[in-house]
Amino acid sequence: MLADFSTVRGMTMTMMMMTFNVTPVVTMTLARSHTGSLSQMLARYRRPQLPRYATAFSTRGRPTGARLLDRRGTSSALYFSIAALPARGRVEPTLSAGGCPRVTFSFRLLTGALLPTKRRYSVDMAATSGVVPLSEVKRFIAECMEKVGTSRQGATDLADLLVEADYRGHYSHGLNRLETYIEDVTSGACQPNVQPTVLKETLSTAWVDGNDGLGVVVGNFCMELAMAKARQTGVGWVVAKRSNHYGIAGWYSIKAVQCGLLGMSFTNTSPLMCPTGAKSAALGTNPISLAAPAQDGDSFVLDMATTAVAVGKIEVQRRKKERIPENWALGPDGRVTTDTDVAFNTGCLLPLGGVEQTSGYKGYGLGLLVETFCGMLGGSLYGPNVRRWMQTTSGDSVNLGQCFIAIDPECFAPGFQGRMSDLLGYLRGMEPSDPEKPVQVPGDPERRHMKSVDEQGGISYHQNQLKASVGVQGTCTRLCDIGVRVPSYRSRGGARRKTGDSADGHKMKDYSCRRLQYIGVTSEFLRGSIP
Amino acid sequence: MLADFSTVRGMTMTMMMMTFNVTPVVTMTLARSHTGSLSQMLARYRRPQLPRYATAFSTRGRPTGARLLDRRGTSSALYFSIAALPARGRVEPTLSAGGCPRVTFSFRLLTGALLPTKRRYSVDMAATSGVVPLSEVKRFIAECMEKVGTSRQGATDLADLLVEADYRGHYSHGLNRLETYIEDVTSGACQPNVQPTVLKETLSTAWVDGNDGLGVVVGNFCMELAMAKARQTGVGWVVAKRSNHYGIAGWYSIKAVQCGLLGMSFTNTSPLMCPTGAKSAALGTNPISLAAPAQDGDSFVLDMATTAVAVGKIEVQRRKKERIPENWALGPDGRVTTDTDVAFNTGCLLPLGGVEQTSGYKGYGLGLLVETFCGMLGGSLYGPNVRRWMQTTSGDSVNLGQCFIAIDPECFAPGFQGRMSDLLGYLRGMEPSDPEKPVQVPGDPERRHMKSVDEQGGISYHQNQLKASVGVQGTCTRLCDIGVRVPSYRSRGGARRKTGDSADGHKMKDYSCRRLQYIGVTSEFLRGSIP
Repeated sequence: MLADFSTVRGMTMTMMMMTFNVTPVVTMTLARSHTGSLSQMLARYRRPQLPRYATAFSTRGRPTGARLLDRRGTSSALYFSIAALPARGRVEPTLSAGGCPRVTFSFRLLTGALLPTKRRYSVDMAATSGVVPLSEVKRFIAECMEKVGTSRQGATDLADLLVEADYRGHYSHGLNRLETYIEDVTSGACQPNVQPTVLKETLSTAWVDGNDGLGVVVGNFCMELAMAKARQTGVGWVVAKRSNHYGIAGWYSIKAVQCGLLGMSFTNTSPLMCPTGAKSAALGTNPISLAAPAQDGDSFVLDMATTAVAVGKIEVQRRKKERIPENWALGPDGRVTTDTDVAFNTGCLLPLGGVEQTSGYKGYGLGLLVETFCGMLGGSLYGPNVRRWMQTTSGDSVNLGQCFIAIDPECFAPGFQGRMSDLLGYLRGMEPSDPEKPVQVPGDPERRHMKSVDEQGGISYHQNQLKASVGVQGTCTRLCDIGVRVPSYRSRGGARRKTGDSADGHKMKDYSCRRLQYIGVTSEFLRGSIP
Repeated sequence: MLADFSTVRGMTMTMMMMTFNVTPVVTMTLARSHTGSLSQMLARYRRPQLPRYATAFSTRGRPTGARLLDRRGTSSALYFSIAALPARGRVEPTLSAGGCPRVTFSFRLLTGALLPTKRRYSVDMAATSGVVPLSEVKRFIAECMEKVGTSRQGATDLADLLVEADYRGHYSHGLNRLETYIEDVTSGACQPNVQPTVLKETLSTAWVDGNDGLGVVVGNFCMELAMAKARQTGVGWVVAKRSNHYGIAGWYSIKAVQCGLLGMSFTNTSPLMCPTGAKSAALGTNPISLAAPAQDGDSFVLDMATTAVAVGKIEVQRRKKERIPENWALGPDGRVTTDTDVAFNTGCLLPLGGVEQTSGYKGYGLGLLVETFCGMLGGSLYGPNVRRWMQTTSGDSVNLGQCFIAIDPECFAPGFQGRMSDLLGYLRGMEPSDPEKPVQVPGDPERRHMKSVDEQGGISYHQNQLKASVGVQGTCTRLCDIGVRVPSYRSRGGARRKTGDSADGHKMKDYSCRRLQYIGVTSEFLRGSIP
């Protein structure tokens, strides 16, 4: 059996909370003993650096501390890695009827106290090794965008951006967003082949018209410009209007780090945040990103929304038919609600910090700071005027405002990277409150995710991830109609295969599995008892 | 009686939570009827714009909605204004034995639910009208600083800074800090007469050595330099090392607004914030300030610490012998504690957002952002190496890092101030969740406080404010020894009087009242039944 299990090595199972109704606590129950082999293999992966989101874990009822690799982004996806099993305790997999290791998951809600187990799901582990190389995902995205009229360069830029998001573990901002970009292009809201123009410029600043181009094209242009200015005068500050969704804010700030500079990026977004004391949303989730280089390729990468939680977290609770905690969202009466349906339908998130009593006005102020740098300086749409969240594209200009800053640390005290490494090292080395959860710095969870992707040779997408990314069936049909070739994937044995078009290999009944094939993850990835 | 009550007009009673055990709910009970007069006068002050912190209010048990003017800053002081009485309901003051109106306050704790009234306090309103003109406070502070060796300019700069903090309602950063500055100068940690020097410079940046000078001298120098650069290239980015405490961060950002620019300032501070997942503090409360001009003198002024709450809030709970809520602070074991004594003694605050589950890692990231701009860029002390909070001054260089940014909005889209006004107006005009608490924007509470000070012709300091500001008796004695003249104050009748030195007029027994006389607030300000 050892040979079988070795294929599990490094594999990351990605599970969407939306379907699985998972909250931070995941209990893994191994139903039947399979002596030794998996646990032996897994023992090799015992890590001194445990992942960020430790969870309750039980083997035959004994808690041993399973791990969630990461939980972040607006999709609220939970990424659970078999490679990150506990440093102590035994793992005994079940031998399924077909001879494959079989793991039964049950999920529990932890909100102050452990609640009873709600559901159980089984995953056939032998069938989960569909891994798509980054290059294949890039090719697929680029091809999709080219087919709807995007230039080769624009399509490649977008593919690089989205794959980087998935690579870093921000699945909500990767392939997940492809359909939105396609829709914005096909509706005419986004002009896929225009270049930004500089409207006003000084040695250190520029005001840019994005001309309704792809957000990534505008963003790359602005960040490069800011960096060029920073090399001249120490700081470059570039603001764009008439831009579109630009993906993960960190993409742009990290560009600066790669050149030894500090980078920042900000964008305004659809109104979802409720100002402290108000009854409705007026500002977006308005992210802030700062990236700063340390020594030996290390870095500090902050990339955060200024709201308390992402919408996805409310979606999760909704599907579970469980209430949301206080301090997450408001109902239509402007009062904090714990009614999940009310919160979801209202779409009114609290700022970082929560309500006023827990300093939520600070998060509100930070959202307004971002809007000042974007809509106010840029002359784009701003605040409540930005396109509503999930609004059907009308073809009107999205006209987002975005801000990009680059700073050359060489213009200040010598030895910036050394100090940065020293401080990051100090923080990482601090005694943790939970011995199994070392202290991390912003950027560490992404670093861990990238390492995992590298180890497995590609990104492992779950069918539900695809459901939320490649999206509705209509899009997929359209993609097939326009002749996009689905990507190849590596099977467990390491041989490369290619799936056919959408009419090929439809052996699964539900639409998710059909979608799966577009990026070549085997439709057998999850064939267990998932409802 | 009307004549008597008219002296109450515009008066702000400042009450330190530490002594009064006040949490956001204050119930005012008027024990005995005094027909008409005060209520008639107060009726003139019924305001359509109600203050930020509405509170439960009762007149003879009927809730009518009294108001707290503001509650902010690290001192956790509550500023309660008689001028801000309810728009509805009757106010009937008690006629005390001496013929003075007498109001009895009782305070209730609101933490999710109303708890029983804990205590009652009486305030003799006729004795509360000691108001110190801003110019007198400035003179007093400047004289103190000059007496310990500060140049006239440095002393004046510091006085302007501290009085501005009090004027804006940030009492923790005003006169309250005078003793710290005096101690830092007398210990040699701060050089009161040095000027900063520019170590490195480009068109848009500068690296400055504060030479261990007064924080305000370094800060003013750097902000002026940043503004000059912003006028040239659109942006100025100045970082200082070897600085000292620089007061309210907003002081510097507002300087830029006064010239039509956007201003930002950041400083690192003594380690008090616990990184997410750690057991001890490693970063400071590291404030962020952004100020941006709107039309007609309006502005957006953000000035916030990146920790969840200030230390002062824990002190308040401690004096009340009540537990603190979760998400405020950690105990020595690195776990969230609700034990107030443990939290106070540990001095380990959670970042904005609280624990990890409520996105506290974002506040941690923001604290690290500030440290990147300050200690990392500036080459000052940083993170855990900064002088500990409340540490006795050893005379060593405090060596703080600070960052100052100015941005010229004219370098971007025309009409910045118009858009800013439009957005601020929209936010203020949003339907509030509580009809009596209009939505505010960052900077509004300060604006309200300044208006109140203007109306009453000066700042009304409470004895407990002084206890925390002019500080320990030793300092007061020292001040007298060095011949500082105590400030004059305006009595109720409007005549100007001067108190004598510390040996003069000691009619009150406790040290706080002795302290009071240093700025001329009558020791009879509070002579009720305060324990």
